[in-house]
Amino acid sequence: MSIRIEHALAVVPGFRFAGVHAGLKKDQRKDLALAVADHAASAGAVFTTNLVRAAPVDIAAARVASGSARAILVNSGCANACTGEAGVAAAEKTTSAVAKAIGARDDEVLPASTGVIGVVLDEAKVIAQVPSLVGSLSENADAFSQAILTTDRGPKIVHARGEIGGRSFTVLGIAKGAGMFHPNMAPLVPHATMLAFLFTDAAADGRSLAAAIARVAEATFNRATVDGDTSTNDMLAVLASGRAGTEPGHGGRVPAPLEEAMLLVADELAKKMVADGEGAEHLIELHVSGLASDDDALRIARTVATSPLVKTAFFGKDPNWGRLLGAAGRAGVRFDPSRAQIAVGGVLIVERGIGKGATAEAAAHEVMERPSYRVDLILGNGPGHARYLTSDLGIGYVRCNADYRS
Amino acid sequence: MSIRIEHALAVVPGFRFAGVHAGLKKDQRKDLALAVADHAASAGAVFTTNLVRAAPVDIAAARVASGSARAILVNSGCANACTGEAGVAAAEKTTSAVAKAIGARDDEVLPASTGVIGVVLDEAKVIAQVPSLVGSLSENADAFSQAILTTDRGPKIVHARGEIGGRSFTVLGIAKGAGMFHPNMAPLVPHATMLAFLFTDAAADGRSLAAAIARVAEATFNRATVDGDTSTNDMLAVLASGRAGTEPGHGGRVPAPLEEAMLLVADELAKKMVADGEGAEHLIELHVSGLASDDDALRIARTVATSPLVKTAFFGKDPNWGRLLGAAGRAGVRFDPSRAQIAVGGVLIVERGIGKGATAEAAAHEVMERPSYRVDLILGNGPGHARYLTSDLGIGYVRCNADYRS
Repeated sequence: MSIRIEHALAVVPGFRFAGVHAGLKKDQRKDLALAVADHAASAGAVFTTNLVRAAPVDIAAARVASGSARAILVNSGCANACTGEAGVAAAEKTTSAVAKAIGARDDEVLPASTGVIGVVLDEAKVIAQVPSLVGSLSENADAFSQAILTTDRGPKIVHARGEIGGRSFTVLGIAKGAGMFHPNMAPLVPHATMLAFLFTDAAADGRSLAAAIARVAEATFNRATVDGDTSTNDMLAVLASGRAGTEPGHGGRVPAPLEEAMLLVADELAKKMVADGEGAEHLIELHVSGLASDDDALRIARTVATSPLVKTAFFGKDPNWGRLLGAAGRAGVRFDPSRAQIAVGGVLIVERGIGKGATAEAAAHEVMERPSYRVDLILGNGPGHARYLTSDLGIGYVRCNADYRS
Repeated sequence: MSIRIEHALAVVPGFRFAGVHAGLKKDQRKDLALAVADHAASAGAVFTTNLVRAAPVDIAAARVASGSARAILVNSGCANACTGEAGVAAAEKTTSAVAKAIGARDDEVLPASTGVIGVVLDEAKVIAQVPSLVGSLSENADAFSQAILTTDRGPKIVHARGEIGGRSFTVLGIAKGAGMFHPNMAPLVPHATMLAFLFTDAAADGRSLAAAIARVAEATFNRATVDGDTSTNDMLAVLASGRAGTEPGHGGRVPAPLEEAMLLVADELAKKMVADGEGAEHLIELHVSGLASDDDALRIARTVATSPLVKTAFFGKDPNWGRLLGAAGRAGVRFDPSRAQIAVGGVLIVERGIGKGATAEAAAHEVMERPSYRVDLILGNGPGHARYLTSDLGIGYVRCNADYRS
C-alpha cells in the first residue's frame, strides 16, 4: 500500500492537543499550544544551526537528546530569543508547570517559541493558562494548529497514512512559518521560526527517529526559502506513540514506510510554508540539473532561490531568464552558460544560453500567473540535480516586515 | 597636502567626453557615452566574477590586459549579455566604428554595457550616432555621466585632487549602478551592472594601475550592496593620461597619493550608488568588529548587509536588533552572542547580548530617520573588523524590479 497524503485533520492514537489565548499576541488570537502524549513517546528533533539560538531551542535540544518526550509546549507572539538567563528561566518554569499538570517530569516537556526576538517570555501569562490548556486537551489538533501561527495566513496541517507489515499507521504534521524562513537545521547542532511537529502512532526508537528526522529536514525544509533568513528558533520534532502496533525498525533505521510518510508530510508542509511566505503569491519549485554533482546543483539552486532580483521577477510574472542565469553565474560553481536551457512550467525560454524570444516568453508569462509552477535550469549534462522551493518577493513582504514590530 | 574630495565636475587634462541619445532606451534619455584619451592612456580594470559575463566584459577584459587604452564606449538600455556570437559581433563592430572615428586601433576601445539581459546590442543605432558622439567630445563629462545611467536617480560624479612630488593631479570618477548591485570584481577574472570609470592626469604604468584598481575595488565596491545580486556586466576601469607630469611610481605600485585618491573617489562613488539603490531611502554604513579575523568580520558583515529581514527593518526605521543578531548568527562564524554589543548611530541598543530597552530603541529610531547612518556590531574583543555599505529594502525596490522589463 502506498503512502497517501491528505490535508485534513486526522486523529493520531496516543496524542491529544490544545490551544488557547494567553495574551502573548497583541490581538485576541490563540497563542499557546500544547501537544501531550498519553505515555512517554519516542522523540527526535532538529533545530536551527543559527549561532544565536533562543532559550527554548537550547532547552528542547538538551531534553530531546534522551530520545523520548511527553509533551510540546509552543507559544507564538514571543520568540524568547536573545533573552539571557531570564529567558531560560521563563522556558523552564512554564514547561515545569505543564509537567506538573500532566504528571510528567520537567525534562519530558519540550518548549518551542516563535515571535518577536529580544522579549522575555511572559511566564505568568503562560502559567495562568496551563489549567485551561490541559483541561481542553482532545484528539482534535485544530486549536493547536492555530495557536502556533504568527504571520501565517492560516494553519498548515497534513497527514499521511501508510502500512508497515500489514498494520496501518498515521503521520500527522502541523507547522507554522512564513517569514524569516530559510531553515538550516542539523541534529545535535541545535538551532528554529519555522516550527513543524510530526506525530505518529507508528513505533520507532528515539535514536532512529532522530536520524530519520534529520534526513527528512535536509530533503525538505532545508531546501525551502522565503527570505533566506535562518531563524533563531527553527525546530522540527517528531513524536511516536507506537499505538499502531507496527514493528519499530532495526539497524538504527525507522521502517521505510514510516520515513517515506514523514518525508511526504514534511514536503507538503514545506510547500505550504513557502506558498504562505510573507506576502508571497507564488510557490516556485526550482529544479537545477546537469551539474557535475548534487552539491554543485544545490549551491546554484540556493543562490537562485534566494536572489532578490529573481524573486521580484517572479512577483512581476516576468520570465526574466537573464536574472536566473545571472544568479546561477554568481554561485561559485563552474558550468558553461552557452549550454544553458531554461524552462518555466515546461515552456523552454532559453536554449544554448540564448533567449527563445517573445512568443516563448509570453507563454512562460502565462504559466507565471499560476499560484504554483516549476522552473528548470538545465546547465549541462552532468548527473548533479537539486530541487529548491521558493516564493516571489513582493510588496506584501516588505509591508509585513517593515511593520512587524510597530 | 591631503587628498580633497569634491562632488562637482572637474576637467582632467588629456580626456574628453560625450553622451548622446541613440534610441537604446525606450524613452528620450541619453544612452550612449564615450570617453576618449588624447593619446594612448595607461589603463587597468576589474570586471564581474559572475560566470555569466556579457560580451562587452569579455572583450574589454581582453583588450585592457595590454595595459593601455584610448577610449571607453558605454551604452545603457541594453546589457548585451547572454547574447552569444551576435552580441560579441555587435560589441566589436561598434567599438571598431569609434576606433576609426578617433584614429585608434580597435583593441584600444573598451566596450561597456548596462541594461536588460538577453537582448543583442543594436549596432546600427550605435554606429549611426558615432559621428555626433565624436563631434561633441569636450572636457565636460556631464553628458557622459548622464548617458550611462539606467534606474539611477541621477549622475554620480566625484573628483579628488592631490599632489605627488609637489605636482598636483586630479582623479575624476563617474559611475552608475542602482539595482543588481553587489559587485564582486577581480582582476584577470573578468566579469559588470555597476559601472565606474576613473580618469586621472597622474602618470602610472598599466600594470601598477591594474593592481591598484583591484585593491581599490576590494575595499570599496566589493563591500557594498543593494540587493546581493552580482551583475553580468560590472566593470571598474581607470585611465591615466600622465598629463600632470607626476612621477609614475615604482616597484609595481602607483604613487601612494594616487592610490589614496582613487580609493577616496571609489568610496564616495560606492556610497552614492548604495544611497541611490533602487527604491532605497537610507545609506547604512555597517561596521562589524571584535571577531577573530577580518575575514570572519567580512563574512558576518556580508550576511547582515544582504539580509532581507535586516534591510526591511531599515526601511521601517525599526531598530530590530534581533534581526541583526539573527543574521550575524547564520553567517557561519563563531562568536559569543552573549557578549554582543549593537549601536545605531552611536546609540547602544544591545549590551551583552540583551536589549537595552524602549528608551534606547526610541533614540535609535530617531537616528534611522536620517538618510544615512552607521550601525556597529561589536561581537567580541578580537581584532577582526569589516565595513560594508548597504541600503534599506523597500516597496520602491520591489516596484522597480517587478516592472523592469514590462
